[in-house]
Amino acid sequence: MSYSIGIAPNIRKSPYFDATVEDGVRAFSVYNHMYIPAHFGDLAAEYDRLVNGVVMWDVAAQRQVEIRGPDAEALVTYLCARDISRTRVGQGRYVPICNHEGLLINDPVLLKLSARQFWLSIADSDIELWAQAIAAERGYDVEICEPDVSPLAVQGPRAEAVISALFGDWIGDLGYFGFRETSLDDIPLVLARSGWSKQGGFELYLRDGNRGGELWRRVREAGRPHDIGPGAPNDVERIESGLLSWGSDCRLQVDPANPFELGLDAFVDLEVEQDFVGKQALQRIHAIGPARRRVGFFIDGETVAGNSAAIEVLLDEQRVGSLHEIAHSPRLGRNIGVGLVDITVEDDERRLWAVVDGRSRALEIHALPFIR
Amino acid sequence: MSYSIGIAPNIRKSPYFDATVEDGVRAFSVYNHMYIPAHFGDLAAEYDRLVNGVVMWDVAAQRQVEIRGPDAEALVTYLCARDISRTRVGQGRYVPICNHEGLLINDPVLLKLSARQFWLSIADSDIELWAQAIAAERGYDVEICEPDVSPLAVQGPRAEAVISALFGDWIGDLGYFGFRETSLDDIPLVLARSGWSKQGGFELYLRDGNRGGELWRRVREAGRPHDIGPGAPNDVERIESGLLSWGSDCRLQVDPANPFELGLDAFVDLEVEQDFVGKQALQRIHAIGPARRRVGFFIDGETVAGNSAAIEVLLDEQRVGSLHEIAHSPRLGRNIGVGLVDITVEDDERRLWAVVDGRSRALEIHALPFIR
Repeated sequence: MSYSIGIAPNIRKSPYFDATVEDGVRAFSVYNHMYIPAHFGDLAAEYDRLVNGVVMWDVAAQRQVEIRGPDAEALVTYLCARDISRTRVGQGRYVPICNHEGLLINDPVLLKLSARQFWLSIADSDIELWAQAIAAERGYDVEICEPDVSPLAVQGPRAEAVISALFGDWIGDLGYFGFRETSLDDIPLVLARSGWSKQGGFELYLRDGNRGGELWRRVREAGRPHDIGPGAPNDVERIESGLLSWGSDCRLQVDPANPFELGLDAFVDLEVEQDFVGKQALQRIHAIGPARRRVGFFIDGETVAGNSAAIEVLLDEQRVGSLHEIAHSPRLGRNIGVGLVDITVEDDERRLWAVVDGRSRALEIHALPFIR
Repeated sequence: MSYSIGIAPNIRKSPYFDATVEDGVRAFSVYNHMYIPAHFGDLAAEYDRLVNGVVMWDVAAQRQVEIRGPDAEALVTYLCARDISRTRVGQGRYVPICNHEGLLINDPVLLKLSARQFWLSIADSDIELWAQAIAAERGYDVEICEPDVSPLAVQGPRAEAVISALFGDWIGDLGYFGFRETSLDDIPLVLARSGWSKQGGFELYLRDGNRGGELWRRVREAGRPHDIGPGAPNDVERIESGLLSWGSDCRLQVDPANPFELGLDAFVDLEVEQDFVGKQALQRIHAIGPARRRVGFFIDGETVAGNSAAIEVLLDEQRVGSLHEIAHSPRLGRNIGVGLVDITVEDDERRLWAVVDGRSRALEIHALPFIR
């Protein structure tokens, strides 16, 4: 089934929109009320560039929520389930954000630009509203907005060569999630070693929405010797690598989950003195233990194309979990998936199955990630 | 330009999804993180049915935020810029919701199901997060969720005939925005006289997501004698009728606006005793007077197809506003649009222009609505 999507004024266009059209974008999705390229017509080539070469993605829809002012650090501390007190300027942190019941409502990367200025680089939910409501009701002295900042991701083993050709050798000094405020000639941006893949790479947080086309073309030009091509956040690689996709793996309104179910224990700090949203609920959940856990699955049978909605995981005739997203892994030569199962289901359970593409198929649990 | 949209698990499918596919949906958009039909391939027929006959729309993406519990009314009162104290059970109210700075963050219809249970039937922003944050921080004793409720709209001058055939003559007693909890055989739903058009009609708030296909087919069957057909919320008619489209006409992150700029004065009650979010800011804005106002425009020249983003409104060479959405009105035989202009611009200003479809065109202000 193929449907079209209209480009209408109620959904925002990325600053790279025209450039991606020029480069042959074929499908869009919508993320944070903004169009985001879904693919450019050759999924195999996009995957291959990501794991063997270098690919560029318009991820402007990964919007920033900026928190600025005297109480910025206090508010960010209160919003995040992770202790950010030792975060340095220029250091990004993956920070689960929960509601007061301990359910994950977003999983942004936090960028500390200064002691009084932070960005939350968000997944697909309105954290600007969340942060504004909490700041105003608690009387924090902060300003919260969505600034004119639009990431462009360059991902893959050859990303470093492309980025160093553009910015110089100093980029080698950036640690994982490290970033620096800089510019490309006079295009203002923040350069970070980050991105939604495990293939290595960078994100260029463009700070002037009028210069998207220019930045896109500069990156494409610098990437030409490395056969760079356009692509989009890749669901096959993210399942192989075990990355969380908030929105697919959980969503507050669909299949709400807490960070312990999702295996994010390392990013939740319950022993801190300060209060944060959801702390009490998370302490309670942690004491009892989570009811489900996030796992990978091998899926038997012929090659799957993907799924359009979550699929029930069954043990004999009983529902014991859900497969949130499935894909065929070219590197493993197998069908894989990611989902949540009841905590009582053992790793070596041999009676798991699901209906995929109209057929009953055996499932086998595999620890995440599939590929390290 | 035509692009495709993939149906992926990170965006929800409506309970009517399969039925709309069966009925030939051709394009989708995304609203409240859910696929929503954009059209079925014949826009002229959809418009004609809406203004002369009857059309059915999958508007499940108009999600409900349910607020339930002992403090439900207190929280709703605090969230809404409109005084809801005299709202009766069974009565819907159009309620602007602002942030603490007085900027409109959503414009839902409020449904009072009981003294302790309310629905906010929302436009495209995460009001569930907003309401949860405020309720928890203020210590209100409420539960807030997005229930399994999915509206199906039946709109047009013949809608009443279709709905009375399904539910009986009592529906004639429903006043505008009136609703009743009922069922169709055993399909549970709330029936309301409402909908996002000025052509009259009803919304069936389905309360069991497993029965979407069934409800869709029942409505289609009852509508057959009236030549009902599938369609989608119609931007041409809404501009003609002056209805607000939150997301197009304003959006917090793109072109934030306060309710006075948007002409929603009648729905903001500043004289109440109780506090509500944004009250102080709105009092301040009201005292000074809004900086802009919402108006309609006639647009000169050949027929326009529509726009993909807001367009600058110019007076000689100076930017004095923006055209948020444009369309060709079949009933008026003219190009029309809706937008905001600086308060200093007079109704009879003759030097307004904009670049539409690559050409400079004269604009003429027209009071909203174009058609009553």
